[in-house]
Amino acid sequence: MNSFGKIFRISIFGESHGITLGVVIDGCPAGLPLKFEDFIEDFNRRRSGAKGTTPRKEADIPKIVSGVFNDLTTGAPLTILFENTNVRSRDYTKLRETPRPGHADFVAMKKYGGFEDYRGGGHFSGRLTLGLVAAGVIAKKLIGPAVVKANILEVGGSANIEEAINKAMEEQDSIGGIIECKATNLPVGLGEPFFDSVEAVLSHMIFSIPAIKGIEFGSGFQAAKMKGSEHNDNIISADGKTETNHAGGINGGISNGNELVFRVPVKPTSSTHQKQRTINITTNTMEDLEIEGRHDTCIALRVPVVVEAATAIVLADFLMQSQKIERIIKS
Amino acid sequence: MNSFGKIFRISIFGESHGITLGVVIDGCPAGLPLKFEDFIEDFNRRRSGAKGTTPRKEADIPKIVSGVFNDLTTGAPLTILFENTNVRSRDYTKLRETPRPGHADFVAMKKYGGFEDYRGGGHFSGRLTLGLVAAGVIAKKLIGPAVVKANILEVGGSANIEEAINKAMEEQDSIGGIIECKATNLPVGLGEPFFDSVEAVLSHMIFSIPAIKGIEFGSGFQAAKMKGSEHNDNIISADGKTETNHAGGINGGISNGNELVFRVPVKPTSSTHQKQRTINITTNTMEDLEIEGRHDTCIALRVPVVVEAATAIVLADFLMQSQKIERIIKS
Amino acid sequence: MNSFGKIFRISIFGESHGITLGVVIDGCPAGLPLKFEDFIEDFNRRRSGAKGTTPRKEADIPKIVSGVFNDLTTGAPLTILFENTNVRSRDYTKLRETPRPGHADFVAMKKYGGFEDYRGGGHFSGRLTLGLVAAGVIAKKLIGPAVVKANILEVGGSANIEEAINKAMEEQDSIGGIIECKATNLPVGLGEPFFDSVEAVLSHMIFSIPAIKGIEFGSGFQAAKMKGSEHNDNIISADGKTETNHAGGINGGISNGNELVFRVPVKPTSSTHQKQRTINITTNTMEDLEIEGRHDTCIALRVPVVVEAATAIVLADFLMQSQKIERIIKS
Amino acid sequence: MNSFGKIFRISIFGESHGITLGVVIDGCPAGLPLKFEDFIEDFNRRRSGAKGTTPRKEADIPKIVSGVFNDLTTGAPLTILFENTNVRSRDYTKLRETPRPGHADFVAMKKYGGFEDYRGGGHFSGRLTLGLVAAGVIAKKLIGPAVVKANILEVGGSANIEEAINKAMEEQDSIGGIIECKATNLPVGLGEPFFDSVEAVLSHMIFSIPAIKGIEFGSGFQAAKMKGSEHNDNIISADGKTETNHAGGINGGISNGNELVFRVPVKPTSSTHQKQRTINITTNTMEDLEIEGRHDTCIALRVPVVVEAATAIVLADFLMQSQKIERIIKS
Repeated sequence: MNSFGKIFRISIFGESHGITLGVVIDGCPAGLPLKFEDFIEDFNRRRSGAKGTTPRKEADIPKIVSGVFNDLTTGAPLTILFENTNVRSRDYTKLRETPRPGHADFVAMKKYGGFEDYRGGGHFSGRLTLGLVAAGVIAKKLIGPAVVKANILEVGGSANIEEAINKAMEEQDSIGGIIECKATNLPVGLGEPFFDSVEAVLSHMIFSIPAIKGIEFGSGFQAAKMKGSEHNDNIISADGKTETNHAGGINGGISNGNELVFRVPVKPTSSTHQKQRTINITTNTMEDLEIEGRHDTCIALRVPVVVEAATAIVLADFLMQSQKIERIIKS
Repeated sequence: MNSFGKIFRISIFGESHGITLGVVIDGCPAGLPLKFEDFIEDFNRRRSGAKGTTPRKEADIPKIVSGVFNDLTTGAPLTILFENTNVRSRDYTKLRETPRPGHADFVAMKKYGGFEDYRGGGHFSGRLTLGLVAAGVIAKKLIGPAVVKANILEVGGSANIEEAINKAMEEQDSIGGIIECKATNLPVGLGEPFFDSVEAVLSHMIFSIPAIKGIEFGSGFQAAKMKGSEHNDNIISADGKTETNHAGGINGGISNGNELVFRVPVKPTSSTHQKQRTINITTNTMEDLEIEGRHDTCIALRVPVVVEAATAIVLADFLMQSQKIERIIKS
Repeated sequence: MNSFGKIFRISIFGESHGITLGVVIDGCPAGLPLKFEDFIEDFNRRRSGAKGTTPRKEADIPKIVSGVFNDLTTGAPLTILFENTNVRSRDYTKLRETPRPGHADFVAMKKYGGFEDYRGGGHFSGRLTLGLVAAGVIAKKLIGPAVVKANILEVGGSANIEEAINKAMEEQDSIGGIIECKATNLPVGLGEPFFDSVEAVLSHMIFSIPAIKGIEFGSGFQAAKMKGSEHNDNIISADGKTETNHAGGINGGISNGNELVFRVPVKPTSSTHQKQRTINITTNTMEDLEIEGRHDTCIALRVPVVVEAATAIVLADFLMQSQKIERIIKS
Repeated sequence: MNSFGKIFRISIFGESHGITLGVVIDGCPAGLPLKFEDFIEDFNRRRSGAKGTTPRKEADIPKIVSGVFNDLTTGAPLTILFENTNVRSRDYTKLRETPRPGHADFVAMKKYGGFEDYRGGGHFSGRLTLGLVAAGVIAKKLIGPAVVKANILEVGGSANIEEAINKAMEEQDSIGGIIECKATNLPVGLGEPFFDSVEAVLSHMIFSIPAIKGIEFGSGFQAAKMKGSEHNDNIISADGKTETNHAGGINGGISNGNELVFRVPVKPTSSTHQKQRTINITTNTMEDLEIEGRHDTCIALRVPVVVEAATAIVLADFLMQSQKIERIIKS
């Protein structure tokens, strides 16, 4: 299913080289101001072009075609479309025979019986995150006064990001990175015990972002090495403020009013200029593979705004479930 | 919501000190042999009593009350009930005033307005995982020839488990641990791009297990420090077998036919005999808190079978969505 | 799937001759007073025993096993169980060969490959509506000040109910009936355009009740014979009150604040003492079939309270989606 | 929610006078041939222009922007867009004050706090059924060899359709009608007991079509006047064929392999040239209202193809749940 959410619900569609991609947002309350300009900042953060990102540049102009009237949301499904313009034609025949290591080429071919749109990764393309970021812009407006902010902690194992990028570009290889996301001003009580815990729903959404291979909340993996007396966060005020925040703002799956904190590793871009080995599925022999074209040296650089969007979308849905967002926005 | 799954769908209910807890399993195909004895092995693995686990012992006898006829599933909802028998009466008045650090006491009180059943953690209790394990027993039968197996890698930061447990018991503290889970014999093609990727759905379910604060697939957090040329798994056969398995068996969110591998950290049990500080919400002053009663020194010891169950449940649902399990079992 | 609802969500399970049947209610707000006695009136209305209903009598004692603490709901899943006690043993071998006309025997056998619990209709039994009625009792409390009331309009084509029942009993045949249901004090704005219109969701739920073969809102089928100028309800006050109510309280799928009105036909009980013809699936020849045992002459007599319950459940869910029910009940 | 379906799932969006409306179809198997031409016949049946329908004419050209590659479905979300071209500008100020009887004007204003796009009915417009018909074209291909066919039985209470239309046009009034829909070649076993019975899910979808105010399966309301011995359909062959079809092809909520039959009443178009009375919500006084513009005299004429589409969509989903449609189409 290409939809996510219970009340604030998004659906994405499109392909890397398709005509139009987009997002449908269901359950957005009526009366929220929304203009074209609202998308610019986050779209710029997601856009490629900076050092370490792919030179493929798309205008990424959001076209709001339903759900907004006189610059205000109407309460009906809100649809935002994007045209693909900067699409390079090329011959994919060779690539069909030799699935790229680390890519979805092989699994897509098997899953869809060879009928998938394989151009540029098709529906698996990171371009689909454009819809997430667009929905995130709206979600961020809805969740106020809560604020979500994600940052890169390190790339290629180095906290010195520029240096690591330069080194990777010299080596003509790709590198990964670690992103940290924090949300503040959350009420106590979001999330449900067990299946819809904050960790459960948030991780579900976060893993929808391509290239993310893990997530940890608060002390995360480090918690496994701590003692209970160290890990427990002493509660120091009647509104639930804790002295430390090893829990990352969540107890028993429920937000506790402290800062929500989690980290995610982004794997290195699968596309690398290094020579690789793969099977030729036609001849059934191993071959060298050199991937040409435009790639991100470090896709992690473009992911923080996507993580923020994903987080804001989940929080908007949780807040609506908790009746913490009015169904009709009263300016 | 206390339900999970699209086709093979489970719902859990009950409280730590309630009358009955249980699980309803919807979508289980008809014709699957199922007997009382099938549950014994996994229930024993989950049960307390071993060194490092709580001395509270429950008989944990599964009572199948619907969905099975003549020791075969019928296709109707399958319900398994458990009676709570070994429940200690005690005075919870004090505990209501001083929410325990690291527990759900505070968030539950706020979320449910003080109406929650607070005895022994109520609906937040780890006892609810009994329903998960029961559903897991059934899911494991359904997913064959696929096999799921989870193990403890370390507790308290030490691979020597017995030593670490002994040390923690001496210190009267609790410790966490890391669990690794692997699933073999999976077909290519499980999972959906984006929102229902294998990582997304599996992490959703895994975070439903109390005390788990992170998850990583394949190389996970380590992937963020690798180069693309290192991380990519060379494909070495036409059925998708790879030389390495940094992807943990998943590309683009879809199973690639290699071993599914993930690891989760389990935080130390919140209940510890160490003295802690918390707020008295009635007097609004900080107090010392000493938790009495029966606790697990290392709850992680009991979690592998729950992780296995959760994984098998998710895989059963994915396999049914992929029509890889017959709706009617033909012995 | 054996669940219904988005926020106020119910799941039913069990079989006619099984050990236990019941209902799990998810999403019930915390703090709602709930006692055993609350169920008595509606259970009595559903119970058999009156003239025209089956002599099989069950105690139908609801056992609340989770989600209630100190006679107040806790916000956790609320489970109500019922034991089957008055179960007659008998030989079903013959019945397996000759599926009863009008029953689910044939479709159940085909759908579940012969593994279904066929005793007394198994999971298809009207006994499962006990869970609906129990959930309805809770829903009726939640939706106040809205009130739902269903009545029999006619049985066997006659508005004189006693006469029609007597005649049917003399003829040893079964008869159907028509039920009308009304809900008052509803706010404007329940329901969603298109897929989740009030008519759509309500009819979905109402058709879950066995033996119901139609539904019409307001003027219903009669509307097809009316002119627009006749059918349109003139709006006579600023709160939406209309002069007539041909729309049955719904415009564009949304409640308009007037009385919600719908009618449903209940088909005659399939079990009748009249001789019938059916195929013997073993010998592949036609046979006479005489159904013995205890039957309702007119099951429609017991259905109004089930229709009320189903309606209240749907309205509770709509009201919660519209934030018209507080998540935590105050006073 | 503006989505429907479990596996074959559709989402619709757009407004009567918006820029673009459309449908996203999730879960369509890969490998299904799909071309622009496939939509022409059903779009023509839905289109206005014939006697008794509105003179507003739209080109209704489907633009497939995702999910199809080389005229074959890919398995990714399939999106079809329509541009609104023939939109008349006009002044809606007056209409905002005097909600039209029988329309969604009043409920939409209340539900969305006055933020709704009220032009031409906005999101409530029957134009949205274009997305249903488009999805229906695809569903009809999927369900083969099953075939769905809907017809008008009567309009304005008369089986002589032309005469009734002429009379209504003379009277400058609108009229309703009754539509019958049949589906043949269905397997035994579609649907689930209780909440997802064939009647339940089908009625849910059918009531999504504007102007439909009732539904009855098989003998429907007439069944309430029959005896069990009359209503029961004798089974006359081992594949479940029945002598009569009072059940309309469904027993216990499950398809029985006989023809699926249901009827729906379509109310007369709310827009009529007759003078009506309504409240002016600004002045709080009653006023005469004359609706100008282009209307359907009998919208029922355009509804059969929409009913067919809705039915095919539901059947496609049921068939996929029953694994009766291959996930990958093998020509």
